[in-house]
Amino acid sequence: MKDAPETPDIELEGDATPDAVYAVTPEFVRAIVQGLQDGDSDLIRELINPLHTADTADLIGFLPGDQREALLDHISSDLMPEVLSALDESIRDDVVELFEPSELAAAVSELETDDAVYVIEDLDQAQQEEVLRSVPAEERAALEEGLNFEEDTAGRLMQRDLIAVPAYWTIGQTIDYLRETDDLPDAFHQIFVVDPSYHPIGAVDLDRVLRTKRPVKVVDVMDADLRRVPVEMDQEHVGYLFQQYGLLSAPAVDPEGRLVGVIMVDDIVEVIHEEVEEDTLRLAGVAGDDLNESVTDTARTRFSWLLVNLGTAAMASLVIAAFDTSIEKLVALAILMPIVASMGGNAATQTMTVAVRSIATRELTATNAMRIIWKEVLVGGINGILFAVLTGAAGGLFFQDIGLGLVLGAAMVINMVLAGLAGIVVPLGLERRGIDPAVASTVFVTTITDVFGFFSFLGLGAWLLL
Amino acid sequence: MKDAPETPDIELEGDATPDAVYAVTPEFVRAIVQGLQDGDSDLIRELINPLHTADTADLIGFLPGDQREALLDHISSDLMPEVLSALDESIRDDVVELFEPSELAAAVSELETDDAVYVIEDLDQAQQEEVLRSVPAEERAALEEGLNFEEDTAGRLMQRDLIAVPAYWTIGQTIDYLRETDDLPDAFHQIFVVDPSYHPIGAVDLDRVLRTKRPVKVVDVMDADLRRVPVEMDQEHVGYLFQQYGLLSAPAVDPEGRLVGVIMVDDIVEVIHEEVEEDTLRLAGVAGDDLNESVTDTARTRFSWLLVNLGTAAMASLVIAAFDTSIEKLVALAILMPIVASMGGNAATQTMTVAVRSIATRELTATNAMRIIWKEVLVGGINGILFAVLTGAAGGLFFQDIGLGLVLGAAMVINMVLAGLAGIVVPLGLERRGIDPAVASTVFVTTITDVFGFFSFLGLGAWLLL
Repeated sequence: MKDAPETPDIELEGDATPDAVYAVTPEFVRAIVQGLQDGDSDLIRELINPLHTADTADLIGFLPGDQREALLDHISSDLMPEVLSALDESIRDDVVELFEPSELAAAVSELETDDAVYVIEDLDQAQQEEVLRSVPAEERAALEEGLNFEEDTAGRLMQRDLIAVPAYWTIGQTIDYLRETDDLPDAFHQIFVVDPSYHPIGAVDLDRVLRTKRPVKVVDVMDADLRRVPVEMDQEHVGYLFQQYGLLSAPAVDPEGRLVGVIMVDDIVEVIHEEVEEDTLRLAGVAGDDLNESVTDTARTRFSWLLVNLGTAAMASLVIAAFDTSIEKLVALAILMPIVASMGGNAATQTMTVAVRSIATRELTATNAMRIIWKEVLVGGINGILFAVLTGAAGGLFFQDIGLGLVLGAAMVINMVLAGLAGIVVPLGLERRGIDPAVASTVFVTTITDVFGFFSFLGLGAWLLL
Repeated sequence: MKDAPETPDIELEGDATPDAVYAVTPEFVRAIVQGLQDGDSDLIRELINPLHTADTADLIGFLPGDQREALLDHISSDLMPEVLSALDESIRDDVVELFEPSELAAAVSELETDDAVYVIEDLDQAQQEEVLRSVPAEERAALEEGLNFEEDTAGRLMQRDLIAVPAYWTIGQTIDYLRETDDLPDAFHQIFVVDPSYHPIGAVDLDRVLRTKRPVKVVDVMDADLRRVPVEMDQEHVGYLFQQYGLLSAPAVDPEGRLVGVIMVDDIVEVIHEEVEEDTLRLAGVAGDDLNESVTDTARTRFSWLLVNLGTAAMASLVIAAFDTSIEKLVALAILMPIVASMGGNAATQTMTVAVRSIATRELTATNAMRIIWKEVLVGGINGILFAVLTGAAGGLFFQDIGLGLVLGAAMVINMVLAGLAGIVVPLGLERRGIDPAVASTVFVTTITDVFGFFSFLGLGAWLLL
């Protein structure tokens, strides 16, 4: 039964249609909106009943604010907890406002601790306490403990329900225990083996349990090479461990090394996505930005980055101002100067983006830094010379001025080499000082390429041409 | 045994040290390099034996080319297959050159099909054929089929070894089958249930198998809500399915809907990472760039993007050239013009980055496009007005020229609104035309903000001030 049959020769017909992938298409949303406007409850239920809760959550996000409330009335209350935990953060903040604390408490009680914490973590203090008061005492304690961990740590990600057995149990005993216990976790991928003081000493993957004969002891088939995750570990590091070692789940341990929870791969898939995406957004100065934030919140989060950029642009302008008489004499300098700055800025952004990602994935460390710096300088030099020839010739011809062409070419080489150097040295230097290179690199690098781009070109021009 | 003990109150002591996370530290690499130089084989073995194969692969990547070969001699041949499949692509290309085809064939034979294909897919045609000739016939057929699927499709990701049972089997029969069969896949997370023509009709998670009593039929506990993945599906869509529905594994099906393989979450974790990262790199014009590529390859891949950028910079310069007499009369225009262009460029990059990511994650679709476009225009307007006041006042004071300040402010508002609009409309428009917005957005958007930034400021200046 095991081997799959031979794969027949397959005609590849381009990309699979996204419609086969995405359940909530624009047409689907339009049908829902129409149904809500017509008050056609039967149609709405017929449309949303087959949806996975993750798709229902997406649908809520696509609807304008006033229709969200109308749709919520059609979602059955036993699905609501899952839908709430699947909602995008900024939308969940709006949606939970529509619930009574007691309703929210009922929903939260149905969820695993990590998902429940996720749903209530952004409520304001008063609301959070009101919800917690309505939750049964035992779950309340678990929730409060979950909330005590800092955001983005392993403690927030872990689920407290897990399977742990003592080393002297057999596989048979373990299977019997699983068959006879009603209150098992919703899902589990490994069975942890613990010593008498509840330190995890190994784990048995479920496929191993299933292929092992009943009398065998768990200690004899367990994998002792555990990746223990301290509860205070940053989720970025947890994501790294899962990715590096292909983990399905990992034991979370307290500072005494005792097993207190389990981290599951499906939560980590989200984390890995988020962490890479955060770097993309940080490089563009939009960290924490979200499509669904309000206009004022969005304008505010972007303002500070633009203000910093204004500072660097002003510095560049001061450099230009220092050469105002040169520009008055030779206006071609003003016409060509943005080319040098722009090419340097782009070359630096290329290097910087690769460097920031390579630092994040630990491909670039102190070990190979010198080799890579040297490589980037060479790349900058090669492309600098190529573009120097190209722009120098074009600029010289356009203005019928060989000297101007030579100055443009020389400035191009200088700035492209500098761009390569800045693009790699700035992120590495920030990282070494404990500053996230994704947050701060762009500002430093563009300042360097702008200021030196204008300075090298205008300086050489003023010196050699006037 | 199930519940974890109470978590004690934990003193959070900042971030967990990365040394607890990363096995291959710079110090570790230094020790290895020293050991290789001293020819101290015992030390090297002692250092690398406890390493996970994924860490050994990282270590190889950190070493300079000439030391890689020396290290390979110390890696035991039974670990080599795993190490090869864990190597970074650009490094693997170098490393496989060091092996004889027969050695490579031996290593490849030990791997699951998906990993084996991954190791040999980048070999040139002749080498690949030589390796394939040395692989046992049965595995060769599987490999050749794997290579027939296009890169970055589900067919390449899937593993052909899987567990499938007929619907009439009981849980007991299934467990007995697993216990008695020697040649099971290395790892599996689900058991697929198939009909007589091998169409998957459901799946049973292993924890479900373990908690179900022996006489129960698999068909009665299986989850029939399968996410079937056609072999030709793009890996980006496969990643979406795993993330959206929290999958551990998914059945891969041929065009007739028959089960031909299984896709596992640990391979998908890599894919999700890669796909988000690719977008980051594409936005910066360094798609496919890799830290470990050679100098000439790196210079070549970056050249084309810089050439495109030179085109947009040249267009901006032509706009400036059209106002050369205005600049000669009022050199302050040349000094201030980069500020307008730079602020517009940055504001547009912010919007564009959020838009590109939101399109990739399906948060931004035709359904909510109008609402988000309108929001971005408003955000641009608000920040435009704020920065108009700021820069207008500063510019007016600096040059003691109220008119110049007003022109600067007006150009700032125009350009920031335009930046918000371009930052969202360009990626949406590209997406609708089937062009990857991550690849092409930056060029269009920076051209728009540069050209209109210079034009609005110089045009208003020439019109109102001269």
